Amino acid sequence: MSKPTPISGFPEWTPAQRMIEQYVLDRIRSTFELYGFAPLETRAVEPLDQLLRKGETSKEVYVIRRLQGDPEGAAGDDALGLHFDLTVPFARYVLENAGKLQFPFRRYQIQKVWRGERPQEGRYREFLQADIDIVDRDTLAPHHEAEMPLVIGDALRALPIPPVRIQVNNRKICEGFYRGIGLTDPEATLRAVDKLDKIGPAGVTELLATTAGASEAQAKACLALAEISAPDASFADAVRALGVSDPLLDEGVAELTAVVETAAAHSPGLCVADLRIARGLDYYTGTVYETQMIGYERFGSICSGGRYDNLASAGTIRFPGVGISIGVTRLLGLLFGAEALTVSRSVPTCVVVAVTSEELRGASNRVAEALRSRGVPTEVSPSAAKFGKQIRYAQRRGIPYVWFPGAEGAPDEVKDIRSGDQVVAAAWEWTPPRADLTPLVS
Amino acid sequence: MSKPTPISGFPEWTPAQRMIEQYVLDRIRSTFELYGFAPLETRAVEPLDQLLRKGETSKEVYVIRRLQGDPEGAAGDDALGLHFDLTVPFARYVLENAGKLQFPFRRYQIQKVWRGERPQEGRYREFLQADIDIVDRDTLAPHHEAEMPLVIGDALRALPIPPVRIQVNNRKICEGFYRGIGLTDPEATLRAVDKLDKIGPAGVTELLATTAGASEAQAKACLALAEISAPDASFADAVRALGVSDPLLDEGVAELTAVVETAAAHSPGLCVADLRIARGLDYYTGTVYETQMIGYERFGSICSGGRYDNLASAGTIRFPGVGISIGVTRLLGLLFGAEALTVSRSVPTCVVVAVTSEELRGASNRVAEALRSRGVPTEVSPSAAKFGKQIRYAQRRGIPYVWFPGAEGAPDEVKDIRSGDQVVAAAWEWTPPRADLTPLVS
Repeated sequence: MSKPTPISGFPEWTPAQRMIEQYVLDRIRSTFELYGFAPLETRAVEPLDQLLRKGETSKEVYVIRRLQGDPEGAAGDDALGLHFDLTVPFARYVLENAGKLQFPFRRYQIQKVWRGERPQEGRYREFLQADIDIVDRDTLAPHHEAEMPLVIGDALRALPIPPVRIQVNNRKICEGFYRGIGLTDPEATLRAVDKLDKIGPAGVTELLATTAGASEAQAKACLALAEISAPDASFADAVRALGVSDPLLDEGVAELTAVVETAAAHSPGLCVADLRIARGLDYYTGTVYETQMIGYERFGSICSGGRYDNLASAGTIRFPGVGISIGVTRLLGLLFGAEALTVSRSVPTCVVVAVTSEELRGASNRVAEALRSRGVPTEVSPSAAKFGKQIRYAQRRGIPYVWFPGAEGAPDEVKDIRSGDQVVAAAWEWTPPRADLTPLVS
Repeated sequence: MSKPTPISGFPEWTPAQRMIEQYVLDRIRSTFELYGFAPLETRAVEPLDQLLRKGETSKEVYVIRRLQGDPEGAAGDDALGLHFDLTVPFARYVLENAGKLQFPFRRYQIQKVWRGERPQEGRYREFLQADIDIVDRDTLAPHHEAEMPLVIGDALRALPIPPVRIQVNNRKICEGFYRGIGLTDPEATLRAVDKLDKIGPAGVTELLATTAGASEAQAKACLALAEISAPDASFADAVRALGVSDPLLDEGVAELTAVVETAAAHSPGLCVADLRIARGLDYYTGTVYETQMIGYERFGSICSGGRYDNLASAGTIRFPGVGISIGVTRLLGLLFGAEALTVSRSVPTCVVVAVTSEELRGASNRVAEALRSRGVPTEVSPSAAKFGKQIRYAQRRGIPYVWFPGAEGAPDEVKDIRSGDQVVAAAWEWTPPRADLTPLVS
């Protein structure tokens, strides 16, 4: 077998990086649970026709087929694809299990997703997302939209990462405003304004004219709206100053005000109303969220989502929801790339128990058992080589302690191999300092 | 959208079942880390040619292709398939990263795998495995084979499941014995003996004659070996009593004796030498393991593995290893089916903070913040309905406490809705009994 090579877009972390990832996931999960979100996992596959309901994503789907199965099957009605996000599977799960769930239903879901895109920097074909969503039956109270930034703010603040800023907008503001100035195709307008960062104001003005039939004055108004940004409810004054009146606009302003004020009461500076935030996906109907990591703004959003009303419906029953998704792989990829995250050792092990001779391995096993029974991660040395070599085994992995079973009635001793300090110890009572027990992430 | 239906072989748990699964995974992971195994995740896909190196598994592979990609690509050299176990990807990872890893390398890996089989009871197309492996460069000391049952014994004993029995055998015993009685095709012999449970001694005798050229006496000897089973080193006496002599046989007996004695010193009764255990996969070269859950023996092994010497090699460098895999989905599927596992509530939430009116939602948010800051999972009531309705919201989810913010300067109160007891409390100091803090699995 020749040496295998990585597959582009399918990242694999080292064990040390995986320890950091697990630390991050544990923290995220803990915050989600503190807010009462219940865990859920859905299968990795969905019927292809479900995945293709949104035409724009079809290019990104991986289709699967059994190697020995009928090749035609892959194109048939029962063809399966790997899910490309966790929102579509969740909406399907809610419909399928509506009779068994309690509404409003709060769930979190941390899973891999796959997209068959051409990979580029910061884009992956396989990546991990951590989502929360709240769905209700028939109607969903807007205060749930104000809760999302609190959860995400707490979750991200608990991580060893730079501070973040959540940018919020509300689709109703855009739609109401566009309608209020006489534009009849809000989606085309939104798509054009969404390109502001890429093509600049002049480009957007031109695009608005050709795709949304906007006059120069209308384009100017759209750009003025997109310019509005404020860390508090003052954004609403700026909107009103544009002199446009529309009931949907007023509703959106009220909802966004509640989102910004709720966030400010929880953690000042966390949330900014930024009226240029559009989000590509067209299923959003209310608040939309993006999140920048301070100092990493050029890499785009690491946590996005929004309110949706039409993802899940069966007959006359609708399940409106709001959700937000942390791009864990993206976040870690950025920070690993910048060497901004480290862990104090490359294995969980705190103690290596030395082995005097293979005949006495059983005695070392007893020591390890005693240490493990009190929660101390312990390995027994893989060889009965000279102690110097056994110590180097620990050293190379960053393991802080080596334990020497006492020979012929002598007491055991434990050595801190960083300082060289060696003390008499008993396996049923010795405890390492708290900071040494598990690897430290920083 | 019509109501979606489940896809056969792709199980999905309820949120309550997922809480149990997470509890199980946390325990397993904690035990693996106590033994110093480092975490690893590999990508979900491998090059198809790697997955097909073992011809017998080819029927089980799912191939993936990009929906918009070249359909020919799926059959080409760079075609990708979903991994069907975690051993093959791990062997590939070791080869790919050998220069960066410290050997012996101990890793655990808990991930989904996929098999495109026709599903049947207890078989899944998507399922979760929890693996540990130890690989070394060039040679792997046999004591690592004796360590596996200790880890698995501790991991499974920490779970709320029936006790288990690990059955061990050693390929060298079988091969050496078959050679010692003059049979020249040990693999064909092993495959025939492996069918003992299915086709009985007479069937095996016939199969041995046709596929391995065994005489009646040889077949009888093979069956006599397969009959041997003992909870201690006495199995070796029974083997010797068969009067067959071969150096590989002696090596196998010595290794298996060490495995059984090491396990007995750690936990008496955990391990049984059972010389009919063969394992289907032909890459095993030493100790092999299967695990029965007492009372669920008819469902087969829930945790299997073995020693392998030829899975990973590059040029003249070999990486022999030993590993074992807990079939988590299989285990949970059995126990969920038998309704043998329950959790005390269907959400992580310990407290629901009531909302007096939507205008006062901010005050309830403050209470929730204070409780969460001290680790108490808390939700704010989704509506400002009558308190009776808010209490029923908690009741339906099994949430034990409802918190009532004090009106107009009155102190807050918290109600245990199981007993009806209601007491004055302050959010910055009240703590629920430890047993109520998180859901209990039993």
